[in-house]
Amino acid sequence: MTRWQEEAARLDAADPLADFRAHFLIDDDLAYLDGNSLGALPKATPDRVAEVVRAEWGEGLISSWNAAGWIDLPQRIGAKIAPLVGAQPHEVVVADSVSVNLFKLISAALAMRPGRKVVLSEPGNFPTDLYMIEGLEKQGLAERRLAERDGIESALGGDVALLLLTHVHYKTGEMFDMARLTKAAHDAGALVLWDLSHSVGAVPVDLDGADADFAVGCGYKYLNGGPGAPAFAFVAERHQADLQQPLSGWMGHAKPFEFSDDYEPAPGVDQLLCGTPPIVSMSALEVGVDLMAGIGIAALVAKSRKLSEFTRAAMADMVPELPCISPDDPEVRGSQLSFRARNAYELCQALIARRVVGDFRAPDVLRLGFAPAYVRFADCWRAVQTLRDILDSGEWRKAEFAERSAVT
Amino acid sequence: MTRWQEEAARLDAADPLADFRAHFLIDDDLAYLDGNSLGALPKATPDRVAEVVRAEWGEGLISSWNAAGWIDLPQRIGAKIAPLVGAQPHEVVVADSVSVNLFKLISAALAMRPGRKVVLSEPGNFPTDLYMIEGLEKQGLAERRLAERDGIESALGGDVALLLLTHVHYKTGEMFDMARLTKAAHDAGALVLWDLSHSVGAVPVDLDGADADFAVGCGYKYLNGGPGAPAFAFVAERHQADLQQPLSGWMGHAKPFEFSDDYEPAPGVDQLLCGTPPIVSMSALEVGVDLMAGIGIAALVAKSRKLSEFTRAAMADMVPELPCISPDDPEVRGSQLSFRARNAYELCQALIARRVVGDFRAPDVLRLGFAPAYVRFADCWRAVQTLRDILDSGEWRKAEFAERSAVT
Repeated sequence: MTRWQEEAARLDAADPLADFRAHFLIDDDLAYLDGNSLGALPKATPDRVAEVVRAEWGEGLISSWNAAGWIDLPQRIGAKIAPLVGAQPHEVVVADSVSVNLFKLISAALAMRPGRKVVLSEPGNFPTDLYMIEGLEKQGLAERRLAERDGIESALGGDVALLLLTHVHYKTGEMFDMARLTKAAHDAGALVLWDLSHSVGAVPVDLDGADADFAVGCGYKYLNGGPGAPAFAFVAERHQADLQQPLSGWMGHAKPFEFSDDYEPAPGVDQLLCGTPPIVSMSALEVGVDLMAGIGIAALVAKSRKLSEFTRAAMADMVPELPCISPDDPEVRGSQLSFRARNAYELCQALIARRVVGDFRAPDVLRLGFAPAYVRFADCWRAVQTLRDILDSGEWRKAEFAERSAVT
Repeated sequence: MTRWQEEAARLDAADPLADFRAHFLIDDDLAYLDGNSLGALPKATPDRVAEVVRAEWGEGLISSWNAAGWIDLPQRIGAKIAPLVGAQPHEVVVADSVSVNLFKLISAALAMRPGRKVVLSEPGNFPTDLYMIEGLEKQGLAERRLAERDGIESALGGDVALLLLTHVHYKTGEMFDMARLTKAAHDAGALVLWDLSHSVGAVPVDLDGADADFAVGCGYKYLNGGPGAPAFAFVAERHQADLQQPLSGWMGHAKPFEFSDDYEPAPGVDQLLCGTPPIVSMSALEVGVDLMAGIGIAALVAKSRKLSEFTRAAMADMVPELPCISPDDPEVRGSQLSFRARNAYELCQALIARRVVGDFRAPDVLRLGFAPAYVRFADCWRAVQTLRDILDSGEWRKAEFAERSAVT
């Protein structure tokens, strides 16, 4: 055993969350460091989904909207997500996708700041965040402004309606100081919308403590809700009475089953519901959320930091030629580490061939994510050791590893 | 046996689709006349969903975006829906909900008709259609105008950008003449968006033949995609190059995995994709679509008309006190019949207690839907006979049948 392998074994033996991997269906020989892209399958999910499909839909049919509580799923799951992000239960609801929820909440913020049109974000933010601002820009309702991270506070002029930032950067793992940026925006008269896609379930988030206005987040990463799982949205209690958003679908109506011609928004976050929610995907999400809520965010964060710290140190020692572009300090870093490599794509493919799954982010980033509920320190060690082997052997140069797929 | 029971038995014996009920999981003793609200469960769906969850997600994990073809699901299912609505395969895509797709396409139409702001519809249209126009109205981008059905053509003034109609009315089953209304709108310089939620899979639809511009439709009614299944959207080929819609999420980008800061729409209907699609719900939808496409729309329509004609005649004979508010002519009627009754809610509940499932639509409509793939003539007879019994016995007056649920 090498020094790092021994250290990994020691950390796994002392890991209070070690038993939780057994709640997921992951092969023992798989080092899955891509839970920040698609979370693993909880073992309880197949049975729950089968029950929803066979019993609730197949047998209960239309009656399940009441009898199986389908109609309350968006609020019920939202309330379970709330403690993971420092929100009150009635401040969070599950609906649609992150992208669609961004549109709703950017619009809501613009409506609350008449006379201001600028939505401020940073270049290199996750694309959909930037694209949804552009959508409103093409409608003539918003003006997109991008400022580099160190210039955001000075870019908060009197024309800024909303500051839209992703709390943990998808590519670098850099984490914003939510409380500080929120205060800076408020001082400039702007509102703030936090994208928690790479945060929820892995890093500390205190929306209410930071006085945040709005947030959205992803269900299929650290919440383990399955591919394309529905997303969630947060609206601070103080804004709920004034909330107005343009995707005013019938499920967000105060009395949807009166079928009236005129829209009357449902109270609170319920207004963020739009069409009929996808019950099967939503039920799968609930299982993942239950699992994360059961572990609790403090334990998840503690292990996440240990995993990334171990990996960072091992990489610096064993693979020093790949510079880490994630922050050194785990307190300002998401649950991931990113390394710059000219042949990141090929390296990533060669790792996958050896059952070490990280991912590639264009143009030159190799990203390793640490889902604390099921990643072992041994997986991290294996990733580092395998990367060393692949670089030493040159096997990443094989032509097959250069072939590009539709999704990279 | 009564005359109508005999007639039902005769029709069932001669029904070329009789064997298809066996492809659905429905109890033999259940007369399910609510497939126009939530379609029944195809027997192949549980296994397919289990495969997606356990093998594709659980084992394939992130690789399934390529290996299991998740990334192409929206187009693949769209192409299968196309022949059911008279469209070309590349004119249809599956995404989001009907409501969200309405917003995209109303917006797209407004962008194509600069200087015109009116979106014309009818009062009493399905609420979400009207509410989504209101959403754009609150943004200042649209002006909602409602005209009664016989006044629609004369309301098509030079300020109308879009005519938005639901092809088959959810409450009455009345069907618009798609070709005539589309031509009238075009003659007035307006575009047309058809909501096919109560049409697809049950009535003849020829979008291309009618020269329609846009359409949306529901996956969880006659397509049997499961509760809250994703919806579809149609854009006529001639409009695809000019398409511009504000929900410009990353999955609608020409090159989503380049993660660029600026939005560049994907070609054709792919631009209508917004966030990451819910793969589990979408995979369930595919099974339902495959089943309907396998039967073919001509056979579905033929049986639908026979079912509703049988029921209309039996009701007129056996329950003459409940007036039918659906058209007499099956060629201008959807796959449903609606009856006006002061105590429609209680009647509906009493029917359900006897395993005859129709539904109630506020304030006074009892609705019976005929999903041609699995409804038997015997089910229709039982609905009529049971309604007669319930009215004669007065059992609908029981207090328990008056209790209102969240979803009615």
